[in-house]
Amino acid sequence: MSHDARDGDGAVPHLTPEEFRKLGHKMVDWIADYWSRLESFPVRSQVAPGAVASKLPAHPPEEGLSGEHAWDAVFKDIEDIVLPGVTHWQSPSFFAYFPANASGPAVLGELLSAGLGVQGMLWSTSPAATEIETRVLDWLAELTGLPEAYRSTSATGGGVIQGTASEATLVAMVAARERVRRQGAPADSQWVAYASSQAHSSVLKAAMLCGVARGADDTVHVRQLETDARYALRPDVLERAIREDLAAGRRPFFVCASLGTTSSGAFDPVGALGDVLERTGVKAAGGWLHVDAAWAGAALVCPEHRGLLDGVEAVDSFSFNPHKWLLTNFDCNAFYTRDKRALLDALSVTPEYLRNAASASGAVIDYRDWQVPLGRRFRALKLWFVLRHYGARGLRAHVRGHIRMAEHFESWVSNDARFEVAAPRSLSLVCFRLKPQPGEKPEATDARNRALLDRVNASGKLFLTHTVLPAVDGQPPRYVLRMAIGGTYTEERHVRAAWEALSAAAA
Amino acid sequence: MSHDARDGDGAVPHLTPEEFRKLGHKMVDWIADYWSRLESFPVRSQVAPGAVASKLPAHPPEEGLSGEHAWDAVFKDIEDIVLPGVTHWQSPSFFAYFPANASGPAVLGELLSAGLGVQGMLWSTSPAATEIETRVLDWLAELTGLPEAYRSTSATGGGVIQGTASEATLVAMVAARERVRRQGAPADSQWVAYASSQAHSSVLKAAMLCGVARGADDTVHVRQLETDARYALRPDVLERAIREDLAAGRRPFFVCASLGTTSSGAFDPVGALGDVLERTGVKAAGGWLHVDAAWAGAALVCPEHRGLLDGVEAVDSFSFNPHKWLLTNFDCNAFYTRDKRALLDALSVTPEYLRNAASASGAVIDYRDWQVPLGRRFRALKLWFVLRHYGARGLRAHVRGHIRMAEHFESWVSNDARFEVAAPRSLSLVCFRLKPQPGEKPEATDARNRALLDRVNASGKLFLTHTVLPAVDGQPPRYVLRMAIGGTYTEERHVRAAWEALSAAAA
Repeated sequence: MSHDARDGDGAVPHLTPEEFRKLGHKMVDWIADYWSRLESFPVRSQVAPGAVASKLPAHPPEEGLSGEHAWDAVFKDIEDIVLPGVTHWQSPSFFAYFPANASGPAVLGELLSAGLGVQGMLWSTSPAATEIETRVLDWLAELTGLPEAYRSTSATGGGVIQGTASEATLVAMVAARERVRRQGAPADSQWVAYASSQAHSSVLKAAMLCGVARGADDTVHVRQLETDARYALRPDVLERAIREDLAAGRRPFFVCASLGTTSSGAFDPVGALGDVLERTGVKAAGGWLHVDAAWAGAALVCPEHRGLLDGVEAVDSFSFNPHKWLLTNFDCNAFYTRDKRALLDALSVTPEYLRNAASASGAVIDYRDWQVPLGRRFRALKLWFVLRHYGARGLRAHVRGHIRMAEHFESWVSNDARFEVAAPRSLSLVCFRLKPQPGEKPEATDARNRALLDRVNASGKLFLTHTVLPAVDGQPPRYVLRMAIGGTYTEERHVRAAWEALSAAAA
Repeated sequence: MSHDARDGDGAVPHLTPEEFRKLGHKMVDWIADYWSRLESFPVRSQVAPGAVASKLPAHPPEEGLSGEHAWDAVFKDIEDIVLPGVTHWQSPSFFAYFPANASGPAVLGELLSAGLGVQGMLWSTSPAATEIETRVLDWLAELTGLPEAYRSTSATGGGVIQGTASEATLVAMVAARERVRRQGAPADSQWVAYASSQAHSSVLKAAMLCGVARGADDTVHVRQLETDARYALRPDVLERAIREDLAAGRRPFFVCASLGTTSSGAFDPVGALGDVLERTGVKAAGGWLHVDAAWAGAALVCPEHRGLLDGVEAVDSFSFNPHKWLLTNFDCNAFYTRDKRALLDALSVTPEYLRNAASASGAVIDYRDWQVPLGRRFRALKLWFVLRHYGARGLRAHVRGHIRMAEHFESWVSNDARFEVAAPRSLSLVCFRLKPQPGEKPEATDARNRALLDRVNASGKLFLTHTVLPAVDGQPPRYVLRMAIGGTYTEERHVRAAWEALSAAAA
């Protein structure tokens, strides 16, 4: 069959290298300019639902772009359609959620990864993608003080880049179930996973994905446990829950400890939780302790925060996101395990078309068996560039600078009679709120805080988000604002301006 | 606590906008040059295990890069360490696996996404990321002939970008189980998923992840069914398996139909499989039909291949990878469903810190509920740029060109008495092998083909991979070579050269 006479046949209008070079320079310039003018935009996008879509054609173009100035229209649309619809995560006045901070070196790495266009599912499909990833994750383990057992230089451990902390938790949970199953538990056991009520939603989601939780409201198979007054998981509460489940014939198999919860940055006592697993026999049965340090893990580059790792020897897997607070643009999660065999047991499937001599030799790592997807980008490049460009010293300065800004913000809140710090400051996160007025009902206090948040966010000068802290110490649940400091370009003056805007809006 | 006196304190050595601009231009130039010299590299990396790692420092740098020429060392390492360890997926002589073709417009989109650094987990965290994705996926549905029911303009359907086809299959499987459960099946049912023996390994992996399969060797809960002589799933075989499982009290809930299997590009008869689900009552019970068209889906941009979609009305979800054969660099999977509610039922968890007015209004899409991870990159940009740059006409020319090359390759194989076409050519994929010699044992034929493959791959001139086709029509399983044509820069002359190299190596 010949298509010679068909429409759409003939030459494919690829960019020539020269055209790509010109457009690439223009895009780099656009980004450099964008970073320079970040402070000129409202931080949170102000568009209404549908506003962006209404500017896009309803149908795809039949004809492509051609001619020397063809891409001018694209650059115009970036300004007119994309920018107004963007919430500026890279703004120095973005204090919402947790940061997702990018940096020049990381963007250069992402660009190189896209240009090389390799797919590193197997060692053999690009050895450099695997070997640089392995080495750079060993570097990062050393920088954060993770013990030898989690490095590739150990007999049974190692690190891998996952897309997100959600995927890391899912992989850990699936590996845990399979390990316990291989130690003799029936596949149709009543599996139970444990975390604090403050753990990230991805723990419940992972349990839903892997079939342990039967729906989002399953409180039998996913235990979201009560915390102490600092919002940390209580070892005694965990132990009681595990013993109840064991007595009821259920199968405890997975505990997620959080280092730096999303709501308030609370730290679960990792060592004490490990002791519970040991004492209850869960560990001996193959049970798994995962640490989700998605945001706070970055702070471990500073020796003064290494105390958070006390008891890490009991941990089966540990993950944090360089894409949150370590200058490596999303997505980049660093996942470490001391039991890589458990991952392979749970995730490895080898069809004929993926077989090759290097894999068969056992001398190489095939990272596809460490993760949910088969394919993978060359994400190690951006992490490599970041670690080289900043060096350990630069990373420490980055983290310490934000923590110092948070200390200052905390002091301003504390010294203003209208406000209160609502939970212990955690590294660079401060939870705070307008204090209750005498005789004010809790809902009314919450409403005033909600109004304050809406007011400052609508101003466009800054963007922060809220959470609700659960009842503790006889206090009812509280709606609080979260000041999460960690933007690449955030300086003391931006934090000061944020405080002044909050203070003025509260007046 | 003050850190003022600590080492690593003080200014963070960010690249200035001007430094980033210079380095960004240099990286763009490097990529343009790389694409220009792709033909000068051995296609498959020739390094031995450990060779790349041995060139990397054992420990992370304490000091970062500084000074005007600091990054010269990085660019030198890209040449000396990265390049030798890269298998050149973008080489015009890469015919292995399936293509993962990038293009200039896609790389510009990836660069912009990294530079903007937005995280589009919720509509509100960057409305443009969601709304451009929705619109561009509607465009792609129109371009590929997917019916209205899969578009955002329908009442219950829509599209989303997943990372990979593996994640798409997992999401579909989890949504399927939850839908069947909500229709009354107990959570601890004996769930059974079905696919052909030729389906991608990600189907089994998804079943392992979601707990349906109890290990990689579970043939009870994941049925890998016998195919016809063209390696397509047989509706009668599926029906028999489903009825057996129903009779045994098991719960059929998910069928994966492949359009373009990885081994030989076989097409399962989608409509007839849908009829089986209908006839057996599986559909009425909430059962799900997923179509994995990871590679072949791109060909649907050409009307002459739309017949593959016959019966698509019965399909619950459909996915293909623009990152394989549609010029959009990895990762970019287009996933469509006609039942978005089922995804939300299975995947939605909403903690307080993600609540916001726009989501609560129900007027917007929050794509985090359509996928495994919480966070997401602005991947729609690269797809948008590709569709705009090439236009429908350019995409058709791209696909048709490769199919024409495969037709030629097929004819050369057919006309050479030493070779045979081993399975029907599928679009741009040709499975072939050296013919058995008179009286030759099957293992000996396989060995000669394996040796041929090793020889041509070792030459560095091209790279292709193999598969083993299962026994059909009384023939034993056969080791065959796969010629998968689809590189961005692959022209007729590269295919011709590949054939000449194969022909010479066979002599």
